[in-house]
Amino acid sequence: MRGPSRHRGATLDDVARRAEVSAMTVSNALNHPDRLSDETLARVRAAIEDLDYRPNRSARTLRSQTSRLVGVRVERSRQDRAALLLDQFLHALAESASGLGYHLIVCHAAGDTAELAAYQELRQTTAVDAFVLTGAHRDDARRRWMREQGVTFACFGRSWDLDPDSPGAFPWVDVDGAAGIRAAVEHLAGQGHTEIGLVGWPADSDLGRDRERGWREACADLGLPARVQAHVVDEFDAGRDAAHRLLDAPRGGPVPSALVCVSDTLALGVLRALSERGLRPGHDVAVTGFDNSPSAALTTPGLTSVDQPLADVAAALMRLVDAELSGVRPSATHALLPPRLVVRDSSLAR
Amino acid sequence: MRGPSRHRGATLDDVARRAEVSAMTVSNALNHPDRLSDETLARVRAAIEDLDYRPNRSARTLRSQTSRLVGVRVERSRQDRAALLLDQFLHALAESASGLGYHLIVCHAAGDTAELAAYQELRQTTAVDAFVLTGAHRDDARRRWMREQGVTFACFGRSWDLDPDSPGAFPWVDVDGAAGIRAAVEHLAGQGHTEIGLVGWPADSDLGRDRERGWREACADLGLPARVQAHVVDEFDAGRDAAHRLLDAPRGGPVPSALVCVSDTLALGVLRALSERGLRPGHDVAVTGFDNSPSAALTTPGLTSVDQPLADVAAALMRLVDAELSGVRPSATHALLPPRLVVRDSSLAR
Repeated sequence: MRGPSRHRGATLDDVARRAEVSAMTVSNALNHPDRLSDETLARVRAAIEDLDYRPNRSARTLRSQTSRLVGVRVERSRQDRAALLLDQFLHALAESASGLGYHLIVCHAAGDTAELAAYQELRQTTAVDAFVLTGAHRDDARRRWMREQGVTFACFGRSWDLDPDSPGAFPWVDVDGAAGIRAAVEHLAGQGHTEIGLVGWPADSDLGRDRERGWREACADLGLPARVQAHVVDEFDAGRDAAHRLLDAPRGGPVPSALVCVSDTLALGVLRALSERGLRPGHDVAVTGFDNSPSAALTTPGLTSVDQPLADVAAALMRLVDAELSGVRPSATHALLPPRLVVRDSSLAR
Repeated sequence: MRGPSRHRGATLDDVARRAEVSAMTVSNALNHPDRLSDETLARVRAAIEDLDYRPNRSARTLRSQTSRLVGVRVERSRQDRAALLLDQFLHALAESASGLGYHLIVCHAAGDTAELAAYQELRQTTAVDAFVLTGAHRDDARRRWMREQGVTFACFGRSWDLDPDSPGAFPWVDVDGAAGIRAAVEHLAGQGHTEIGLVGWPADSDLGRDRERGWREACADLGLPARVQAHVVDEFDAGRDAAHRLLDAPRGGPVPSALVCVSDTLALGVLRALSERGLRPGHDVAVTGFDNSPSAALTTPGLTSVDQPLADVAAALMRLVDAELSGVRPSATHALLPPRLVVRDSSLAR
């Protein structure tokens, strides 16, 4: 039942189309054959055989007595954040889960302690098989608990404090933020910019330090200075204030002609500051963001941004979870995926 | 156990704070008292009694043998949509569900047929108690199936084809779109606009017709013409093209000085068109959107938009579901909630 073609096999909808019946009828054929006429049942069964369709979740649940449920936590979204990255991720995860015969259980929790309590409760009351964690951080109590309880999990976000090949390592999938920022710097240098500033996060953020490294190393490789920078919290107004500060060029320092931002939220704040100073994005100061949020495409001018391959992240996480639950040893327990720069008018002088 | 104070009662976190223990310890006190020392257990139990804390989900599941799981469907989000309204709704629903001792099961399905098949499977394999439907429409096969199967459900979106007090009616919660558009028109008239155009959806949309009615009736009440209008699909480029068309004033017709849009996606497209024509939003042409999406706050200039009270919608839906599952007859089986206009620079001539 677990042949290599399973993940790309025929779907219930394919069977329905071939048998010229509704998806519901196919589902009935699998679960309540007595509800169908002999003729319909025969037609559906022929289609199932022709397409080598393997009913996934229902059949496998009955077989394995597992719940086929994967838990994931959501936090309240904030109006001042552009990304809503985790919302888009949740969609991608639901789709990947569905493709492997799982469903997601979403639990709401604010903070790691509440999250852990919610997970514990889910394990007790609903027999959740596994968890997908988001927002990995150092010394993560959630990871420790999962390990202690022998719970299957995988994390969106790498183990900053652990060598991925060490015995204490855990399965993770992440996006290479430094490479994304490097791509933005190289694009701006290609547009002729020689003083490229950074609007980053505070130094206590592993993610922020990683992205800053991408800026610093790319500038060094290009022979450009990496000296104009601000480090602020991930809020629209913080990005706006940082841009004003950097463009004021305190103490006669260099004035940047381009600002690379570590999030779209910050970049959209920078665009507001440019408007307030009567500067044209792209023409006067080039701006790039990170996340390629819906706002990046829809704001005017469009915001150049680093796109995270969320569908790939979600698919890789679900494969890790599925492999562990199936007792299959995956070829790798972590993956660092490359992002992609989407160029729009905010970084073009036209 | 179902006294009136239950919904607003003490939480597990309150108990943890009072007992000066972790939330996990409180959870253990409820589910695995043997894991705790007598002293800790006594302290937690005293806090539970002091605060009249009623452990919701775990205890109630054991008592009632229900799953305390509510199913909801997600669709793939599209990059060209500003709203991601259902994402924000999903967060609100997860939070409301958690407050009443439920968890959400998210299933991915494209189209009503796949959605129904997924629901049927969820009922069979996971004993989901109830469903929250989104995107109600006429002659909805999902509603029919829920009724036939005797499944508890409530719908975000009203029954356009049914009198809410008729026997065939179902529980729903919706936002009063016509009132939201009326608020936008009244705001624009207050700014001195006398030719207020509409960028709406095609006439086959109940939702779109309702919002158009808000525009038409508000204009009539204010003694203003309601004659400049476009009806297009809910896409950025459609909004942009519609604005160009309306501002070109075909056949020497009236030129609108304000455009009311039935979504932020359309309004953001209109703002792009203004930029392409060298017109200043607010100064030259005032623009309003609908949904108050993250992009509305973060774009420059900020987009005036109608905010949907999603937290209230989610809470009302979960109360309807919880009441039916508990055998309590709710005081009303539907609710039409008022939206709120959030004014930003796109509609202000300053």
